[in-house]
Amino acid sequence: MALQVGIVGGGQLARMMIAPAVELGIGIRVLAEQSGMSAQLAASQVGDYHDLDTVLAFAKDVDVITFDHEHVPQDVLRGLVAAGVAVHPGPDALTFAQDKLRMRARLAELGLPQPEWAAVADAAALDAFISDHGGRAVVKTPRGGYDGKGVRVVAAAAEAAEWFDGLGEGEELLAEELVAFDRELAQQIARRPSGDFVIYPVVETVQQDGVCAEAIAPAPHSAGRLADVAAEIGEAIATGLDVTGMLAVELFQTGDGRLLVNELAMRPHNSGHWTQDGAITSQFEQHLRAVLDLPLGDTALRARHAVMVNILGGPREGALADRMPDALAAHPAAKIHTYGKDPRPGRKVGHVNVADDDLDTAVYEARAAAAFFLD
Amino acid sequence: MALQVGIVGGGQLARMMIAPAVELGIGIRVLAEQSGMSAQLAASQVGDYHDLDTVLAFAKDVDVITFDHEHVPQDVLRGLVAAGVAVHPGPDALTFAQDKLRMRARLAELGLPQPEWAAVADAAALDAFISDHGGRAVVKTPRGGYDGKGVRVVAAAAEAAEWFDGLGEGEELLAEELVAFDRELAQQIARRPSGDFVIYPVVETVQQDGVCAEAIAPAPHSAGRLADVAAEIGEAIATGLDVTGMLAVELFQTGDGRLLVNELAMRPHNSGHWTQDGAITSQFEQHLRAVLDLPLGDTALRARHAVMVNILGGPREGALADRMPDALAAHPAAKIHTYGKDPRPGRKVGHVNVADDDLDTAVYEARAAAAFFLD
Repeated sequence: MALQVGIVGGGQLARMMIAPAVELGIGIRVLAEQSGMSAQLAASQVGDYHDLDTVLAFAKDVDVITFDHEHVPQDVLRGLVAAGVAVHPGPDALTFAQDKLRMRARLAELGLPQPEWAAVADAAALDAFISDHGGRAVVKTPRGGYDGKGVRVVAAAAEAAEWFDGLGEGEELLAEELVAFDRELAQQIARRPSGDFVIYPVVETVQQDGVCAEAIAPAPHSAGRLADVAAEIGEAIATGLDVTGMLAVELFQTGDGRLLVNELAMRPHNSGHWTQDGAITSQFEQHLRAVLDLPLGDTALRARHAVMVNILGGPREGALADRMPDALAAHPAAKIHTYGKDPRPGRKVGHVNVADDDLDTAVYEARAAAAFFLD
Repeated sequence: MALQVGIVGGGQLARMMIAPAVELGIGIRVLAEQSGMSAQLAASQVGDYHDLDTVLAFAKDVDVITFDHEHVPQDVLRGLVAAGVAVHPGPDALTFAQDKLRMRARLAELGLPQPEWAAVADAAALDAFISDHGGRAVVKTPRGGYDGKGVRVVAAAAEAAEWFDGLGEGEELLAEELVAFDRELAQQIARRPSGDFVIYPVVETVQQDGVCAEAIAPAPHSAGRLADVAAEIGEAIATGLDVTGMLAVELFQTGDGRLLVNELAMRPHNSGHWTQDGAITSQFEQHLRAVLDLPLGDTALRARHAVMVNILGGPREGALADRMPDALAAHPAAKIHTYGKDPRPGRKVGHVNVADDDLDTAVYEARAAAAFFLD
């Protein structure tokens, strides 16, 4: 019998697992939040992932449950495990992706480099942190944030007043020093339940308004110490947090050459989309292999360089498909991926990958092809 | 709105169009002959492609109808066109893929190099052809053959007696000289309805019992004249027969350096499977782009060499999936594709692609990985 993977969540990450599943002969089914989502083709069911019975019914006859996102509640995750379902990444690992305060505390225990941080329960605590850290701080809601949501740079606690007002009993916000970084990097790593892992080349990411806009693989001038340190951090987190499947570690590179852990994602991540056309094994194939505890694939690049540029928002009028002919005609070597989503300002609706032995060519081609899809 | 392609036939060629359709954001639906076929994931309907009403219903709301195979009857094809459905390749082109006698006659009109041939209506005519061509000939049923079926090497007409007995009024068999070739090549070309086309590097194919077993891209020692001649033949056929979508031209290379046209396929073809992992644009993506009249993609290789080795038959006991862990563990850079089919002697159940700058490495890795799936 073919192996069967069940993915909770019908977004573009689930969609992008379809191709490698089909190629490897792995059965794939998706529990989608609604019909017509990005992963529609593999959606075997529409249902609410907050409901344990729904997810248990979906999990029947699959070899493993994995995820398009990190929002499945802990009681549902633990209910699955209690029912004997293989869940990767598991509930314990996912607590650190679901709660940034827990993540910071765990990375501190592991001695990993990260921005200075504190749990702040009220405005006075945040203002004290701000005044201790140069008059500004990053404040984050520990749960539910992504793509810049739930993250705010403040000079006074008053700017996060409604977040404090919304805190429940015993809840706190996360305050972090505002790191004066030179650039942002991302480290992808895949790890099997058995502990085996493989590491991708560290990439440079360019953010726009808190959203990943570009990734360049490998990160320019990273060969040697920088790549080694990023890989060591990736390995320490994957192992220390018992992550299974793909892990993305977002890093700040500071002016004095330190790497500090910014965020974690325990799934395929936007900063790894370049692997689809730029690496021997894509992060989506690797995630499937890892969560099924299959041997992992080669993470080497297919060309010297690979560049990914997001299509953010899409055309103001019409559909992405309307722009496809001109983009394909102008850029025959660009790999254009779209997610079956309607254009909306700031929304991730697709991306372009280019692999090339010349970095300037890869950057130019990917940016120019992506530009066809914007107004 | 996203473009929609409808594929008649649920085999592995339809299956392998799923990945590029998902990536490009093209809607894909399949009319499968039965449930549980290779392209099951995209199968929107099960039905008989010999029935025009069934195919017309399937074709509703698609932008183009294309095919997993060449067996759809002409009356169905022409019924679709009459109803205003875009059909690529079209009925006229497909007659040449469906009837080898018509193909030979048309290539002769175009002045293209091919084995000597004749239409033979009875045993006497075939025996005369045999004695004129060194005592042996290849005899073929003009319709319905593939993968060595309907093809026989004979020294006397009596060896094809039941084929003559089965001929209807006015029907003939095809007799061809038995070419003493040095090796077999295959030329892939993609052509849009607008006439634009792109050409892949010519590949060497290795046949086993009439079935493609391996493909090596580009064909060793083909650079220069050989590649140019193969490309010219491909272009002449694509244009002369008005082929739309992918065309594969199987060629004999003779000891004196001539190329002779053996067979044609108007669809993605086994000799082009290497493009999935070895070329910038796979033949499956290219086929979708061509039949939708979208601009075509770059046909350049991703590495210096690419090798495809078929998995023929599969394990005598158990499923392909049982062998996957060991194969993946031993060959992390091999791309293993399986088709969701049960093993059966001689059946094409999957293939392995390896792209590498070193040819020996690519050949070794692909063969060794494929060998894990055989007894």
